[in-house]
Amino acid sequence: MKHILLIGAGKSATVLIDYLKQIVAQKNWQCTIADANKKSIEEKIGTSKNVAALALDILDDFTRKEAIEKADIVISLLPPHLHFLVAKDCIIYKKNLLTASYIDEKIKGLEKDIQHNGLLFLGEMGLDPGIDHMSAMELIHDIKNKGGKISSFRSHCGGLIAPESDTNAWHYKISWNPRNIVTAGAAGAIYRSNNQVVQISYAQIFSSGELIDFPNLPPLAYYPNRDSLSYIPLYTLEEATEFIRTTLRYPDFCTGWQKIVEAGLCSDENMFDTDQFSISEFLQQAFAKKNIAIHNLLLQKQLEELGWNDSTKLNRGIISYAAVLQHLLEIKLALVPTDKDMIVMLHEIEYQLNQEKHRITSSLSVKGDNALHTAMAKTVGLPLGIAAVLILEEKITLTGLHIPILLEIYEPVLEELKKEGIEFQTAESRP
Amino acid sequence: MKHILLIGAGKSATVLIDYLKQIVAQKNWQCTIADANKKSIEEKIGTSKNVAALALDILDDFTRKEAIEKADIVISLLPPHLHFLVAKDCIIYKKNLLTASYIDEKIKGLEKDIQHNGLLFLGEMGLDPGIDHMSAMELIHDIKNKGGKISSFRSHCGGLIAPESDTNAWHYKISWNPRNIVTAGAAGAIYRSNNQVVQISYAQIFSSGELIDFPNLPPLAYYPNRDSLSYIPLYTLEEATEFIRTTLRYPDFCTGWQKIVEAGLCSDENMFDTDQFSISEFLQQAFAKKNIAIHNLLLQKQLEELGWNDSTKLNRGIISYAAVLQHLLEIKLALVPTDKDMIVMLHEIEYQLNQEKHRITSSLSVKGDNALHTAMAKTVGLPLGIAAVLILEEKITLTGLHIPILLEIYEPVLEELKKEGIEFQTAESRP
Repeated sequence: MKHILLIGAGKSATVLIDYLKQIVAQKNWQCTIADANKKSIEEKIGTSKNVAALALDILDDFTRKEAIEKADIVISLLPPHLHFLVAKDCIIYKKNLLTASYIDEKIKGLEKDIQHNGLLFLGEMGLDPGIDHMSAMELIHDIKNKGGKISSFRSHCGGLIAPESDTNAWHYKISWNPRNIVTAGAAGAIYRSNNQVVQISYAQIFSSGELIDFPNLPPLAYYPNRDSLSYIPLYTLEEATEFIRTTLRYPDFCTGWQKIVEAGLCSDENMFDTDQFSISEFLQQAFAKKNIAIHNLLLQKQLEELGWNDSTKLNRGIISYAAVLQHLLEIKLALVPTDKDMIVMLHEIEYQLNQEKHRITSSLSVKGDNALHTAMAKTVGLPLGIAAVLILEEKITLTGLHIPILLEIYEPVLEELKKEGIEFQTAESRP
Repeated sequence: MKHILLIGAGKSATVLIDYLKQIVAQKNWQCTIADANKKSIEEKIGTSKNVAALALDILDDFTRKEAIEKADIVISLLPPHLHFLVAKDCIIYKKNLLTASYIDEKIKGLEKDIQHNGLLFLGEMGLDPGIDHMSAMELIHDIKNKGGKISSFRSHCGGLIAPESDTNAWHYKISWNPRNIVTAGAAGAIYRSNNQVVQISYAQIFSSGELIDFPNLPPLAYYPNRDSLSYIPLYTLEEATEFIRTTLRYPDFCTGWQKIVEAGLCSDENMFDTDQFSISEFLQQAFAKKNIAIHNLLLQKQLEELGWNDSTKLNRGIISYAAVLQHLLEIKLALVPTDKDMIVMLHEIEYQLNQEKHRITSSLSVKGDNALHTAMAKTVGLPLGIAAVLILEEKITLTGLHIPILLEIYEPVLEELKKEGIEFQTAESRP
């Protein structure tokens, strides 16, 4: 009887927990779901006989080690900096480990131990990173196998609001960590264009992108992700003269957010007294201080929706501008329980084959069911759940420290994702 | 057909809205409920034919004035600093105004206009201030009418968690503005004892009180409220040698909170980077820096419940210590939907009558139904609703700027509160 341990049962775990419940019932396996908040797990798992809830303080070595020792495979949905604690125990007790997070230097330091013990540690196994890697590599390998030579690779992904739930002038609601929205782009971006390295500063980033066509949606805007260059060797695309990974938003979001950045609202450098001054005073003084004109009607509407005329005080003491903005997003752009979010992903690849130019686009769009079963939770959780099953059933037998860029991983996982309704639409054309 | 305008439909408005719905249906009156968030009102009022929802930006002069002009009486549940906007319009359009907030200097400045126009502005008409004034004055007037001479007056009030929902070592959950919990006591306190003025600093405040007996509850602790002295003339108790108003908590709360204050966690002076450091690092470094021993088992449990071992990061940028603590309270000590809060109020009065010493205690305890229909919402909202009806039906005909310390107000309001289950239990004894 196989035993899956899931550590971390927060917002993005809802769909994964449902998937695991179904799998263990069907296969008569066992699953333990561990989180600091036992009540919240119990609410999520209900009364499933093969699924147990475990109250786990992750710093409690004894309970953590005991849980990992009992499991056959471990999935960690903990905040990224905590995976290392789990990873070390997985080596001691010889357990495979899956996460949806970027592989950091500390985990990389375990690579030899992972190999030496014949284990598989699979990171970046969520949406972005995760599904983006798998779907891109499938396309890239297909083209290369045909003898094609890729000249341009552009990959876009965004967590948006579905059109039917889009009720504000930002065309955006909060479906993931709001702090990441506030700090998005702050480190600038670097990518390859015209075979040159292009660097974009924070000041330019939200006005730097162009529009793209996405099937069945109005044109979308993108802004470049932090560091595209490091993906060139992973994707084996040294040959490409264009290489960029981006984030998708509705165009109005980018034009409005550019002004929010200019007004300094995303900065942790300035502090604001939320007891003394109102939301409207916060927004109005910040724009006045930077002399930013707000004649634009769209911007006026967007600022109004953030609280330009809201005379209430946040009553949270002294917090940074960025922390005030985060609160405004949380209260003004929240998902209501029936809202559906939407994940969109688009790869655009140009390549030469038999002296001819080809262009392929491959797109994915996934909608959430509601504010709890979000598209975000589906696309982050399902790849992890599917990979866990494939590894336990020895359909994936790879060992070492990996991200899902290898055929042995992406082929069976993408196949299973299709059965769950997560399927790319691909179109070929000759430009 | 009478028309009541309620401005502000936040958390504390639930019970008042239900009460107004029932009243206007019964009397075939009309009610308009105005808030910046029209959706949230519509959810609260459902489909009541005599009740209308109004989306109101309080800074929008035109809509505000229009709504006030149409009403026969106005109840403001806005944040305190916004009452003045409404009050000025109430003078222009000659409407009576009710609030549950302390009367501030700006409103006091309108006193002549209120009198000159024959209006009634009634403030401090909630729980504390509100029910405390009314119930205390009824006792004080009774004693004085009998010829008694009051030597000691102590009045206590607290918003607690009901025993059946008490699941943590603080014996406390958040049923009102959490910022007020974080800053409670920061200004110290001043009261009269032994006919002397006693001043208590912030450092001493949570260990300064004694225990009191409350019917059907374990002993409760109190800490003195900011300024008791200013109530001596209002309550006409210049004769008393003891006069204090306090806040009630379970004793364990006060001992734990004293340490929280000592560790500097309630201060806005120091800033904390919630992206860089975890909750456990926040708590542990603060206690270490002040060299506060945590050998005490109760304190250990309390700190554990706030996140002493919680290795997640709050991800809210740079915010003050007090703002971090506020977050911890919000996420760790939240009411769950089925939780019941509890309001407790106790007056203790000693007096001389016919050369004999007398002691009277009068206590009120009200439980919430759940996390939405809280005891807090009942006891803040019902006095306002009841007073509005009494004024519209001319059972209260007083004019001027008042708080409910006059017989004409408290007698009929306390009578109606009894019908809603808000009733004091009074006991006389000879000490």
